[in-house]
Amino acid sequence: MQLSCPSPILQHETVQMAHGAGGRLSQELTARVFMPHLNNPVLDQLDDQARFDAEPGRIAFTTDTYVVTPVFFPGGNIGDLAVNGTVNDLAVGGAMPRYLSAGFVLEEGLPLVDLERIVRSMAEAARKSGVVIACGDTKVVQKGQCDRIFINTSGVGFIPPGRDVSCRNLLSGDAVLLSGTIGDHGMAILTTREGLSFQSRIQSDSAALNGMIADVLQAAPNLHAMRDPTRGGVAATLNELAASSSVGIELDEGALPVREEVRGAAELLGIDPLTVANEGKVLLVVPAAEADAALVVLRAHEHGSEAAIIGEVVDEHPGMVVIRTSLGSRRILDMPLGEQLPRIC
Amino acid sequence: MQLSCPSPILQHETVQMAHGAGGRLSQELTARVFMPHLNNPVLDQLDDQARFDAEPGRIAFTTDTYVVTPVFFPGGNIGDLAVNGTVNDLAVGGAMPRYLSAGFVLEEGLPLVDLERIVRSMAEAARKSGVVIACGDTKVVQKGQCDRIFINTSGVGFIPPGRDVSCRNLLSGDAVLLSGTIGDHGMAILTTREGLSFQSRIQSDSAALNGMIADVLQAAPNLHAMRDPTRGGVAATLNELAASSSVGIELDEGALPVREEVRGAAELLGIDPLTVANEGKVLLVVPAAEADAALVVLRAHEHGSEAAIIGEVVDEHPGMVVIRTSLGSRRILDMPLGEQLPRIC
Repeated sequence: MQLSCPSPILQHETVQMAHGAGGRLSQELTARVFMPHLNNPVLDQLDDQARFDAEPGRIAFTTDTYVVTPVFFPGGNIGDLAVNGTVNDLAVGGAMPRYLSAGFVLEEGLPLVDLERIVRSMAEAARKSGVVIACGDTKVVQKGQCDRIFINTSGVGFIPPGRDVSCRNLLSGDAVLLSGTIGDHGMAILTTREGLSFQSRIQSDSAALNGMIADVLQAAPNLHAMRDPTRGGVAATLNELAASSSVGIELDEGALPVREEVRGAAELLGIDPLTVANEGKVLLVVPAAEADAALVVLRAHEHGSEAAIIGEVVDEHPGMVVIRTSLGSRRILDMPLGEQLPRIC
Repeated sequence: MQLSCPSPILQHETVQMAHGAGGRLSQELTARVFMPHLNNPVLDQLDDQARFDAEPGRIAFTTDTYVVTPVFFPGGNIGDLAVNGTVNDLAVGGAMPRYLSAGFVLEEGLPLVDLERIVRSMAEAARKSGVVIACGDTKVVQKGQCDRIFINTSGVGFIPPGRDVSCRNLLSGDAVLLSGTIGDHGMAILTTREGLSFQSRIQSDSAALNGMIADVLQAAPNLHAMRDPTRGGVAATLNELAASSSVGIELDEGALPVREEVRGAAELLGIDPLTVANEGKVLLVVPAAEADAALVVLRAHEHGSEAAIIGEVVDEHPGMVVIRTSLGSRRILDMPLGEQLPRIC
């Protein structure tokens, strides 16, 4: 049997320890599962490092490890999430995302069909957002020493000369915009995990926003800051923005876009959607004079059709976020303390 | 009790799920454990992405995830290993390593003193090699869903204009140099795991080689290729070099530097030191005319004192590595098939 089998990997349907050992089985995993989907002129060099030319402006560099469970969820999987998340982390700094690395930790026994499905999703997400997977690494750990698959994506992009988008740039009077509904990603994960099948219409919003953001920067060239409200949700992100710029932020509760099914599931589970992770949304802080122009561009985009102006930057209560409720009262939107939703991304 | 405690983290001596949630406890972990050691002007921006200026030449970009067990081993720990390994992956491409990312996956319950010890080692290794930890990310998974700590480091460096160091550059007649003894890292890990205490003199060779490599490039400006022989050891790396350049490589077995205690432990465990991982060694392929100059520079350096010319590039048997044994016979040094030493890095 073995003699008639030209390639050892063909004997395996699951990840083996040897696939991470840097020997022939590692090469064959690369050749069979990774390269057919991820091949491109940079990665194909297969040196110890990718090489490419700089573009004008400054370099942006970011990293994120994805440990989401379940690995496959309504609206995506860990693969496209890992690409979109890092693309967005570059884009919200005003950078044009260009090159991503992919570092895999695989659990012995992971079905190769699952790995291939994930890698294919990464390749598709990379193509959609116009980035290149430039380098990679694969480690395998024994069964029980990680949970199926963890993926680190780091990213390199270029910030055009003269562009200054930063969380320290907020000014009193700025408008705060949100590109769409909140809590979709986190509630999709959570309702899947909890087996709340009647909520199954909730889909993750996982998406790369660099195309939309590039268009907004044309329409609102003096845009001050952007952040993607992932872990900790809109609540954590706005608190960080307020603290970084020593300004206050006031939100209109009635202006916050929330899907009915997300609101329902959140109530059922006792969770505030404002603290729930998003993976295809961006918060934008724009001078009031450019707010309407930014909103028009957002709404014209597939990922921004439900965009809204949700609040404003104020001089009062620096470092704090305050919500004006629909009943006319005001409450503080705190930085979430800790973990309501583990392994959401 | 709780009221008298100003900071929630002070109640914890181990990693909590909430430390990875993107909320206040995440901020406090960053403030207490990460920033005191890793702070620098780039990281201190704490935006979603680091920003820095390009240097002349091409950009080099690499990634590696470290899952070594045990986390602390003779001669180092996962922290300095993660910095040195990625620094070396850039340096062997002829790049000057500059910026590293650090992506942590932490197991709930990891003692914070262990995490801090690892982070301190990363900071020291970064200082020694002259790189900056530019951005980071921390995820926490439940107890039993990873093994203590995994660290991804990705790195960005710059390749000076006109420099071309690549595994596709080998030419017949080139000399093959090795910067020191083989198998030290892998055997240090393995003897520790196997409890072979009489072998305890074996220390990992974990070290950043960018300084030494920069000096060699001065003395041997036409150097063709470099690789650090990590997973799969010298055997895997030389096979990759031979295959990439479609040349043969011949080694002198008698010229291979191996410590006595490594040779002894390897024999005891039935392992060929040529297949064992190194973390502070580099293979260099240099035109014969520059070989002696390169050797002199290597030997003058603390990490190259036992450097040797171990073989040569030949036209014969392209893609294959052949060893001339001390008895005058010849044998093929194969690409290792798979895993003898899991989780070595």
